[in-house]
Amino acid sequence: MTKTSWERRHVLSLADFTAEELETVVETAVSFRDVLSRRTRKVPALQGLVVTNMFFEPSTRTRSSFELAAKRLSADVLNFAPGTSSLTKGETILDTAKTYLAMGTNLMVVRHQETGVPQAIAMEMDRLHSGVGVLNGGDGLHAHPSQALLDLFTLALTLDPDHPTSKQLAGKKIAIVGDILHSRVARSNLWCLTACGANVHLAAPPTLLPPGFADAFISQSPLAISRAIVQHNTLAPALSEADFVMTLRLQKERMTQHRLPSLREYHQGFGLTRDRLRLCQPTVKVLHPGPVNRGVEISSELMDDPALSLISEQVTSGVAVRMALLYLMGVGKGE
Amino acid sequence: MTKTSWERRHVLSLADFTAEELETVVETAVSFRDVLSRRTRKVPALQGLVVTNMFFEPSTRTRSSFELAAKRLSADVLNFAPGTSSLTKGETILDTAKTYLAMGTNLMVVRHQETGVPQAIAMEMDRLHSGVGVLNGGDGLHAHPSQALLDLFTLALTLDPDHPTSKQLAGKKIAIVGDILHSRVARSNLWCLTACGANVHLAAPPTLLPPGFADAFISQSPLAISRAIVQHNTLAPALSEADFVMTLRLQKERMTQHRLPSLREYHQGFGLTRDRLRLCQPTVKVLHPGPVNRGVEISSELMDDPALSLISEQVTSGVAVRMALLYLMGVGKGE
Amino acid sequence: MTKTSWERRHVLSLADFTAEELETVVETAVSFRDVLSRRTRKVPALQGLVVTNMFFEPSTRTRSSFELAAKRLSADVLNFAPGTSSLTKGETILDTAKTYLAMGTNLMVVRHQETGVPQAIAMEMDRLHSGVGVLNGGDGLHAHPSQALLDLFTLALTLDPDHPTSKQLAGKKIAIVGDILHSRVARSNLWCLTACGANVHLAAPPTLLPPGFADAFISQSPLAISRAIVQHNTLAPALSEADFVMTLRLQKERMTQHRLPSLREYHQGFGLTRDRLRLCQPTVKVLHPGPVNRGVEISSELMDDPALSLISEQVTSGVAVRMALLYLMGVGKGE
Repeated sequence: MTKTSWERRHVLSLADFTAEELETVVETAVSFRDVLSRRTRKVPALQGLVVTNMFFEPSTRTRSSFELAAKRLSADVLNFAPGTSSLTKGETILDTAKTYLAMGTNLMVVRHQETGVPQAIAMEMDRLHSGVGVLNGGDGLHAHPSQALLDLFTLALTLDPDHPTSKQLAGKKIAIVGDILHSRVARSNLWCLTACGANVHLAAPPTLLPPGFADAFISQSPLAISRAIVQHNTLAPALSEADFVMTLRLQKERMTQHRLPSLREYHQGFGLTRDRLRLCQPTVKVLHPGPVNRGVEISSELMDDPALSLISEQVTSGVAVRMALLYLMGVGKGE
Repeated sequence: MTKTSWERRHVLSLADFTAEELETVVETAVSFRDVLSRRTRKVPALQGLVVTNMFFEPSTRTRSSFELAAKRLSADVLNFAPGTSSLTKGETILDTAKTYLAMGTNLMVVRHQETGVPQAIAMEMDRLHSGVGVLNGGDGLHAHPSQALLDLFTLALTLDPDHPTSKQLAGKKIAIVGDILHSRVARSNLWCLTACGANVHLAAPPTLLPPGFADAFISQSPLAISRAIVQHNTLAPALSEADFVMTLRLQKERMTQHRLPSLREYHQGFGLTRDRLRLCQPTVKVLHPGPVNRGVEISSELMDDPALSLISEQVTSGVAVRMALLYLMGVGKGE
Repeated sequence: MTKTSWERRHVLSLADFTAEELETVVETAVSFRDVLSRRTRKVPALQGLVVTNMFFEPSTRTRSSFELAAKRLSADVLNFAPGTSSLTKGETILDTAKTYLAMGTNLMVVRHQETGVPQAIAMEMDRLHSGVGVLNGGDGLHAHPSQALLDLFTLALTLDPDHPTSKQLAGKKIAIVGDILHSRVARSNLWCLTACGANVHLAAPPTLLPPGFADAFISQSPLAISRAIVQHNTLAPALSEADFVMTLRLQKERMTQHRLPSLREYHQGFGLTRDRLRLCQPTVKVLHPGPVNRGVEISSELMDDPALSLISEQVTSGVAVRMALLYLMGVGKGE
């Protein structure tokens, strides 16, 4: 396991990730995927380090994935449980983070329902010269970098199982369908996929994908990368000839906000089905970050079709990619 | 540690357990009990494997026991916490299970307030050719196999501490007292004890033990085992000459359902006391699956009498028996 | 790591701790602090032992600190979660403790909102000749010994970083400011600091520090130690020439109990600020057990001043001191 050219202390967003950095994550995840397929499934890479999961917004799936990734690397894991926390006693979030720093935390995985909390913690950790790395486990509508990186890794694995590389994505057409406006997963994927040279097509009703979304997004790019994003308010042009389709979880509360008429109408307009995938490339595969509303954003039949769905592969990739991130951020710490 | 003739991927119910399989569990638990009495208390048997506790119905006692058993076998443990889970986001239980499968889970311990959930998960795991083993940690009113097996092990240990074997149970009279109708513990014990040749006597008021219960139970047996079960609506005939008495926890909500007049009257009719045990064999011992309502199903005095109560031994046996089950189900996996 | 003259099975209160015992804790914590600064950060001292955190009163900070301390000593940790526990099913606390004993627990850390629960569990463990050690993680208004010991260690480290010893505290003036009446932290610190020969000055409004508090406290002392405690109802005389100032968390509910006019008035009278510390020795440092109400008991500016605040050092010391306590109580067990 060589650590090639990784200079990043924190992973907060993918907006400024270069193609080289993305490829480093993929390469590192490949080697951890091999570890996971061996009998022992553990490496001593982060022995003695403490990874603290600070999940202010509850999540079973992502927390378990990070917990397992950290344990596979032989780190000790602390889980911060907001329900039983000092937060109810009026402590600020930064003070909570500093308490875990003072206990000896080396890496923090932070999830919060508000945008910017992981960034704020990372800035505080840097101000204190703590050396602690902060990994954004999902913040508000802003970013969910480990999800986009596991999607990238899943795509690379699918395109070339023997030699997965992010370079394979160049020129591929990838459709992202659903509640893009409220999705941190979509935003992180947009940075990631376009940096790899993929052409991304977005599809959603205008209430979930307002006019000018893609242009405004591209204009924020901190890197001089040519980003190919096209947006549609119907499904067919996005699916046409697509190599991959990523559908997003529909938050049920969008209905009560009058952004959508009904789940049934949404499914009729934007729900993925086997039939509709006929518009895509014959080799098309479907991704979903989970948890899934069956029969809403995707039909049960399609979700359960192992020839078409990459949903389980995404979860499996998640452990390898999170091991890669924790490894790249953590190795060498505490020496 | 030799693995003799264990063919079972899942442990969902004891209804089809043969006497040989029950004896295999007892023998394996004996060897783990020896491990627990050594200084190290750990064996590397399941190193690298992931045991996920999926407790949809909360439980401290049983979850901690499984967690400790898994750690003693050097497995990594993930605890699924329903309160903070994707279930609140509308994900199905099978999708939750498949997520943990995709993360790398090898063994799942599933507890759910509804009958059949562990079975449904096991079927799905088989359908996917996952190789994952599912252990029923208690489902609805149906089954709680690890509890009955730890009861069996406790009885075998008591009958012959030097060479505990399930064969010692043949011909023994065992009384089960209390809310049998609503008890998965009683059901699993009925399968287990009768398969070992014990004579089981049930005692409860008719609202908690309706006429014909035992006959209906025996008629469901999938194995050609002669099962000796007698039911009584008073306590004395069940206790008479009994070798062991197992009393069950009384759910307080039975009162509001008008199944019982009052806790006090219940205790007068069916509560175990030292006095009442005089009807039994002089060597009689009492079991209770816990948690105990002191003064309801059992007097405090009796519960705390180390000469009569096996309640602590049951808890201790629980760790050894759960190690045995996880070992038998898990060893060889992932190679 | 030599175990010198430690005879105590339980750590329930510091009232009867001798200066020698306090020094043993400091010395042992020093060696674990060195462990924590090494790359591995783990010692196999308690391998195979089970430490159960029984936190009936929720706490993130203290539970995580004990959990990490136990893991650093290679113990297995069980966390008892009251929300999902058998307590809701009517089990007594002692029965819960006995269940964890029977599972194989060697050390219990007990926190409870009522005074005396850790003591009651310790007595029961002794009555059963279990050999289990009970560490009071905070009970009611009574005691929080590990907090006072980490405060002691922090003071000793500050006074002489190269050779920290409790003997350095002799003759030092230490002010404790705030809600002393309702603080188990203050009580444990009073026993600890005065046993080391420090002069303790208390400052709070009369509703939080009634007349005669110090005298009544001293009169309870089980040891023939001369204890120097002075109480004040204004801040200035306590701060005057003080070497250290410890401020306490103000429970917001004191307002609704009409013990205090308002948070703002409290801060004006007893809140610590950089300005006010000019009354103290030039080398003065501030301690706070956390979590902090910024702007109430201490100004944000002061809390964040690394030249004045020891708050982070306290948290770091906490892991080393808890390792020391678990080690002193646990080593040799299970052999």
